[in-house]
Amino acid sequence: MLLDNIQKVNDIKNIDEKDYPALAGEIREFLIEKISVTGGHLGSNLGAVELTMALHLALKLPDDKIIWDVGHQSYTHKLLTGRRDGFETLRKYGGMSGFPKRKESNCDSFDTGHSSTSISAGLGLVKARDLNGEKHTVVSVIGDGSLTGGMAYEALNNAARQETNFMIILNDNNMSISENVGGVSKYLNNIRTAGSYLDLRDGVYNTLKDMPKYGEQMVKFIRRAKNSFKQLVIPGMFFEDMGITYLGPVDGHNIGQMVRVFQEAKKIKKSVLIHVITEKGKGYKPAERHPARFHGAEPFDVETGLPLRSRTKANYTDIFSTVMTKLGQRDEKVVAITAAMPDGTGLKRFKNMYPDRFFDVGIAEAHAVTFAAGLAAGGLKPIVAIYSSFLQRAYDQVLHDVCIQNLPVVFAIDRAGLVGSDGETHQGIFDLSYLSSIPNMHIMAPKNKWELSDMMKFAVDFEAPIALRYPRGEAYDGLKEYRAPIVYGKGEYIYEEEDICLLAVGSMVKVAEQVRKELKEKGYSCSLVNARFVKPIDEELIEEAATGHKLFVTLEENVASGGFGEKVREFMDRKEIGKTLLTVTIPDEYVEHGNVDLLRQEIGIDEDSVVKRIITEYAVLK
Amino acid sequence: MLLDNIQKVNDIKNIDEKDYPALAGEIREFLIEKISVTGGHLGSNLGAVELTMALHLALKLPDDKIIWDVGHQSYTHKLLTGRRDGFETLRKYGGMSGFPKRKESNCDSFDTGHSSTSISAGLGLVKARDLNGEKHTVVSVIGDGSLTGGMAYEALNNAARQETNFMIILNDNNMSISENVGGVSKYLNNIRTAGSYLDLRDGVYNTLKDMPKYGEQMVKFIRRAKNSFKQLVIPGMFFEDMGITYLGPVDGHNIGQMVRVFQEAKKIKKSVLIHVITEKGKGYKPAERHPARFHGAEPFDVETGLPLRSRTKANYTDIFSTVMTKLGQRDEKVVAITAAMPDGTGLKRFKNMYPDRFFDVGIAEAHAVTFAAGLAAGGLKPIVAIYSSFLQRAYDQVLHDVCIQNLPVVFAIDRAGLVGSDGETHQGIFDLSYLSSIPNMHIMAPKNKWELSDMMKFAVDFEAPIALRYPRGEAYDGLKEYRAPIVYGKGEYIYEEEDICLLAVGSMVKVAEQVRKELKEKGYSCSLVNARFVKPIDEELIEEAATGHKLFVTLEENVASGGFGEKVREFMDRKEIGKTLLTVTIPDEYVEHGNVDLLRQEIGIDEDSVVKRIITEYAVLK
Repeated sequence: MLLDNIQKVNDIKNIDEKDYPALAGEIREFLIEKISVTGGHLGSNLGAVELTMALHLALKLPDDKIIWDVGHQSYTHKLLTGRRDGFETLRKYGGMSGFPKRKESNCDSFDTGHSSTSISAGLGLVKARDLNGEKHTVVSVIGDGSLTGGMAYEALNNAARQETNFMIILNDNNMSISENVGGVSKYLNNIRTAGSYLDLRDGVYNTLKDMPKYGEQMVKFIRRAKNSFKQLVIPGMFFEDMGITYLGPVDGHNIGQMVRVFQEAKKIKKSVLIHVITEKGKGYKPAERHPARFHGAEPFDVETGLPLRSRTKANYTDIFSTVMTKLGQRDEKVVAITAAMPDGTGLKRFKNMYPDRFFDVGIAEAHAVTFAAGLAAGGLKPIVAIYSSFLQRAYDQVLHDVCIQNLPVVFAIDRAGLVGSDGETHQGIFDLSYLSSIPNMHIMAPKNKWELSDMMKFAVDFEAPIALRYPRGEAYDGLKEYRAPIVYGKGEYIYEEEDICLLAVGSMVKVAEQVRKELKEKGYSCSLVNARFVKPIDEELIEEAATGHKLFVTLEENVASGGFGEKVREFMDRKEIGKTLLTVTIPDEYVEHGNVDLLRQEIGIDEDSVVKRIITEYAVLK
Repeated sequence: MLLDNIQKVNDIKNIDEKDYPALAGEIREFLIEKISVTGGHLGSNLGAVELTMALHLALKLPDDKIIWDVGHQSYTHKLLTGRRDGFETLRKYGGMSGFPKRKESNCDSFDTGHSSTSISAGLGLVKARDLNGEKHTVVSVIGDGSLTGGMAYEALNNAARQETNFMIILNDNNMSISENVGGVSKYLNNIRTAGSYLDLRDGVYNTLKDMPKYGEQMVKFIRRAKNSFKQLVIPGMFFEDMGITYLGPVDGHNIGQMVRVFQEAKKIKKSVLIHVITEKGKGYKPAERHPARFHGAEPFDVETGLPLRSRTKANYTDIFSTVMTKLGQRDEKVVAITAAMPDGTGLKRFKNMYPDRFFDVGIAEAHAVTFAAGLAAGGLKPIVAIYSSFLQRAYDQVLHDVCIQNLPVVFAIDRAGLVGSDGETHQGIFDLSYLSSIPNMHIMAPKNKWELSDMMKFAVDFEAPIALRYPRGEAYDGLKEYRAPIVYGKGEYIYEEEDICLLAVGSMVKVAEQVRKELKEKGYSCSLVNARFVKPIDEELIEEAATGHKLFVTLEENVASGGFGEKVREFMDRKEIGKTLLTVTIPDEYVEHGNVDLLRQEIGIDEDSVVKRIITEYAVLK
């Protein structure tokens, strides 16, 4: 196998050019085989095999720097830089990350995970290189989906018209996770469909020359004919107008052509955008046909492409999806917004049923939130469906555009709490903190699938900003009989006893149930309260509970600072309740990738750890 | 006076067309006179007088909606909507806001303050209008400076190719607060300088027609001649390529022309960008000449344009400015980044001395932070100088791009705490919370001007993410003798006594000094500790202090949730210190505009309020 000859970085340079296609085939086979077992990002990686090979051939790593936007397309890069064995432990606890990590290899020059950051980071590395008097090449590889994010534009705008080399590779597969949206996407599509790929002889060299030979009469002609010109596509003018040199389009599965273009591009003392056309899922039919499903895939059968584990239980996203269709039917003022994730957030059914009331704004969280504020100011009831870690990108928009005006926007926050295999960048462990700091904001978290439904209905009728957060994965279907109506600011007793009082938020109610069971077996008397509301907290309930209990325990999947526990502590102190409070939270550190149960153990918020902490604490009580 | 005939909205429609220039003159005179007394945003308002008049003539308010990006250019709009008397109390406590406020008038359709939000909000109002079956016009007015913000691009991308009317007015004065930067700005400048304004007969009407009459041979010709075309400017192709209809450029001081263009633009069933060329500060020579100074002006002498109050004391920005030049000299790895505020942040001197190491990235906070992360990853020592309320826009970039990789970026956070007359949108009262939630982040706050200097030096040598926050206005020059070296995580005793222990953060040290003085006069024994570090807190100091004091009081200009006081409370509880803690913080509400001293009284964090609270609390201690 050719792949056996690639043990470390730059080994690819010893492969004969005629063998490139065969090597690409072996890489694809390797990726499909490995990811079918571990799960992971398949489609984007299959699309970027030749592009990555061409980069490794044209560059000299680790001196040259590649920044992978989002980073989920970096598997071939990992394979070509001596990390073949890592695929056995891909995205597992303690194993290889699914994203670039500087800690993992000196060939990873910048950690990524969220979208649209690569040009900013790359430009920083370019300026550092020049100030340090170094000579290496810096390349940012960004997808057309990531180009819908405003940061990418801010960075392009800033990289324009500089007199130093900066290579930006636009990896254009005409997709975000789902189909791409927006004017720029349409524009790129026009270039794709307008015809032939870059002809190297006529193309690159001429492009590099400054050749205004048609000069002035052309200007006049164009001004006269302006309206006609608006109908045309001049490849890359959009970028050229910004002051970025454009090369392309280039066939992203033709290694030879790409290597030659990259080598030419390195010589240009400007910011150069190389437009590379690739196909997501290339070489594996199921992934070509179902790009959204194979974006981030669960383990699957290679033959059929079907998931190995069939889901028997609904996850929270499914429940949200169903509730949204009902809310949409009940109230025509209800509208839904996603930032490029109609599938991931579960809005696809709403989209199909109410296409006019569904808005996919692209990978543009900041815009999504202020757009929702505009919809609310116009009298509608917008629901922003978003992952916890991505809402971080719109903190100011929540604070400044929604909450100052007290506009009734609903935030349906999925993937809140530990998410597992995507790791540090995707853990949803900050939302209770950053949302709590904002005046006029209200926060809920459901204990199970029925409560998610009830809370959504409550939220849509609520006349101020309100968020509800729920975790990744299977929806809890226990505690079905506890379904008292949602009342503003009120928690709910699940079990009312004495001595110990567990106050649990959302996903931690299930954990707390187990904790209580273990404590009961050990002879403790223990109440369980489902907090329901994180902001405001249920002061009345806590004050009442104070008489009957000796130890209070809050449980939340969120960092301590600014979280639920701190609010309870402040209240208990202010009211001089004088009982001991134990707060179970995520510690003040980033949580790596891995199985959620393992992660919980590692950071001490699993049942056993909590039980131990409670018993220790209880023992020293007066 | 013509202005006397304008008592309420739409009164301008009774003014004779020939009197428009005279009315514009009266408005300018009014604005100059009023702002010279109260202070306020002058330049942007003088530039937008005719534009605002034209909008009011072409539209029907309040049915039609105008969204003013940033909003500081809305003074003429306020004047034309019955708020003339409000200028007596402009930006004063309880008086008229300097920004659009829905609470203030039904002619204000969306509150603004931060940049680049207007197209997102406007698009929301457009979609709401259509779904509600309404017919009014929605207009977003955005400056060319605001167009450097990524949100504006996200929104344009999203507004592209829709089949409904949305008017976007690009108010192009070729300026942010300071000179504009970036590729798009250069592009717009090319249009400005390329020649004549829009000819209405040949322009608008032809633009409205779809007229691809040159057709196919044109395509071939263009593809052949592509390189030549790159040298040319076809007005608006950048926007047309995105799928936005472009009209312009239009003379932004010619009311008649603007009214006619706006009336035509209203009829187009698409998103239309109307490029209006204005001059910042128009009609007042000092403001035309010194646009940055008259962006947000202190009260000034109308005759000379000079400030009425000459500053005798340096403010924190001045100190920062001086320190930066020294740090730049001492270490050539030090680089500085601003998001369009070289003057406001005090980086102008650094820029002049070290132009290669200074980066103005445009109004692009998200990019600024990730760009800084790239610079740090490249081995430099970047300092991001930014206002507290604007760093909110880069929360995820701090969390995801700087802190996960533990990169040594310094955040110099100006305007932290209450800022006064700009109000809700600009108060810097959240940074301790949102930064505290982030792992690997460190936070300091200086008590006086010397400590700002010492902390900056400490921060530059620190090898992890670190922020220091300091308030708007005069730098405190008391406590000069307390200048022990900055030690990681350590606070500083100013006075060590017993009974009451004041733990104050940054700007509140000065307040606490006064509080202590008053308490001493009333016979209490009182220590004062300058916290210096907010994250981590000085646990050792607090634990030691526990023996000697009965009451602890934290003081910070930040909201409670996630702030300094909560960290101290958590520690004291965890260590079972068993002493009462009083936390002085900003309450969980937005703080309106007004004099900072008045605001402090209003929310109970001024000296007298704090003294009262302490005495009350102390009285009930056991």
